[in-house]
Amino acid sequence: MSKFSILILGNASAAPTLTRSNTSQLINIDEQYYLMDCGEGTQMKLREHKIKLQRINHIFISHLHGDHYLGLIGLLQTMNLMGRESEMYLYCPGNIKEIIDVHLKASESYLRYTIVYNTVNDKESGLIFENDKVEVISIPLKHKIPCSGYLFREKAKPRRINPKTVQEYKVPKYHLNKLKIGEDYITESGETIKNSRLTLDSLPSLSYAFCSDTKFYEPIAAVIKGVDLLYHEATFIDEHSNRAKKTLHSTAKQAGEMAVLSNAKRLIIGHFSNRYPDLNMLLKESRSIFKNTDLATQGNTFNVDTNPL
Amino acid sequence: MSKFSILILGNASAAPTLTRSNTSQLINIDEQYYLMDCGEGTQMKLREHKIKLQRINHIFISHLHGDHYLGLIGLLQTMNLMGRESEMYLYCPGNIKEIIDVHLKASESYLRYTIVYNTVNDKESGLIFENDKVEVISIPLKHKIPCSGYLFREKAKPRRINPKTVQEYKVPKYHLNKLKIGEDYITESGETIKNSRLTLDSLPSLSYAFCSDTKFYEPIAAVIKGVDLLYHEATFIDEHSNRAKKTLHSTAKQAGEMAVLSNAKRLIIGHFSNRYPDLNMLLKESRSIFKNTDLATQGNTFNVDTNPL
Repeated sequence: MSKFSILILGNASAAPTLTRSNTSQLINIDEQYYLMDCGEGTQMKLREHKIKLQRINHIFISHLHGDHYLGLIGLLQTMNLMGRESEMYLYCPGNIKEIIDVHLKASESYLRYTIVYNTVNDKESGLIFENDKVEVISIPLKHKIPCSGYLFREKAKPRRINPKTVQEYKVPKYHLNKLKIGEDYITESGETIKNSRLTLDSLPSLSYAFCSDTKFYEPIAAVIKGVDLLYHEATFIDEHSNRAKKTLHSTAKQAGEMAVLSNAKRLIIGHFSNRYPDLNMLLKESRSIFKNTDLATQGNTFNVDTNPL
Repeated sequence: MSKFSILILGNASAAPTLTRSNTSQLINIDEQYYLMDCGEGTQMKLREHKIKLQRINHIFISHLHGDHYLGLIGLLQTMNLMGRESEMYLYCPGNIKEIIDVHLKASESYLRYTIVYNTVNDKESGLIFENDKVEVISIPLKHKIPCSGYLFREKAKPRRINPKTVQEYKVPKYHLNKLKIGEDYITESGETIKNSRLTLDSLPSLSYAFCSDTKFYEPIAAVIKGVDLLYHEATFIDEHSNRAKKTLHSTAKQAGEMAVLSNAKRLIIGHFSNRYPDLNMLLKESRSIFKNTDLATQGNTFNVDTNPL
């Protein structure tokens, strides 16, 4: 059974509070870690959850507002102190290299490992990373400065062995991997057993979209169409929609509308303004548009799975 | 009764841990706040202690290693978000302006308030700030990059009114402030009453020295001679003195030796290496040289007062 989960490390917009840290999420795809944004204090949050820092090899930054990246320098330096040698891949629209370089220059230090910088095009969606399990596609967002969301989409999965028929036809072990990629099996007596007789359909390839920070922006829907789990910022309640408009943020209702528009299966909202001590108002407003909404509560883990409804 | 206290917000060297944040201290002198270093997460620590951020107008940075300043950008941005308009005075050896500017540029933002940058000379001790209550003197330290400690010294305090004799000679209220600055009093009948008869000696002017990061460096002693409270880094135990030497840090014993050499009245040690889960070893070693030592335990407040021994 493959794993695909999102651990919420922080969900506060602007200034962190006593109970809410700035945006950061750890995406776990079959024990491969991807860090999404890195607000101040993220390295402490990761420790709190006993995450092995060095297992993170890819960090995605949505944009260069402080609440989304100020924990990055400290995290990179801690990884260095801990003896990191393997490459770190950084994805970001905007010049994050300049920022890291100025810090390294000031401390007259260097990192023992290499950072591979990937400048993300914030105007056009594109494939920015892939391995055997997942591909990551950028999602152009609309905010005050260049800003990108990220869509994580599992690659097509192998067909699943049908233990009953495989035993029945005495398929040898060495042939099982061939079954997984769709091949038939020819018995010793020359009979061809169709693959469909020996395997079950693949599990569906699941997807997760991270969309923050952004105003309600229709073109997002086309990129994330049918996404299994959508994280969309919901900084404000409807009453403050003027403020959302002015600051190029979204309301909780608009997050719900994006879930509807993109035909998402499930929505979590975050990046809450500090003005709301009770987040249920945001939840209620989003649910009034899209029922399957939850709050991206700090410390919670959300599994990406087939629609649980 | 005047107040002079040091709140320890963090004491970890290098990487922060779950229980120990990076260096930061809040110095309170008669309700005027001074921030000493600003490791990652300092703004959260200040909130934890219910400190009103905007009351901090002076921030002193010892040097530009990440564990001493990475919380600064976030703190300055939060102050801006909260509507700060008054000037912020920054003291630092090295070019901290370049760092702040590159962050502001990346976020295409500006601060509504002015930062007044003061580049501290790390080679020669000098007065870098004073007001009616306190003067701050830089302490050249010896570390891998330009690094400065800071000596906070209260100004001479007014003489204290002797309520008994003032009543006896019927000194009018409007004359009391003149007594405090040393003037005599002439009665209505023309008799001169000596100031010493009407007042008590001033309370002593107290001092606090912050010395981190540094190797054991003799010239410090002359600058901080007779200091009431000394914070000196004690990154390592004696067994790791070679490591201390190599990294230009101090051992706990050396911190004790500096307290002896400078004739300090009391010592607190901090900036502990993460390799010591039990800090009592460091305490014991320092106390073997200088008895009146305490650990700069995170969350503790130390009052600077006349020698409590």
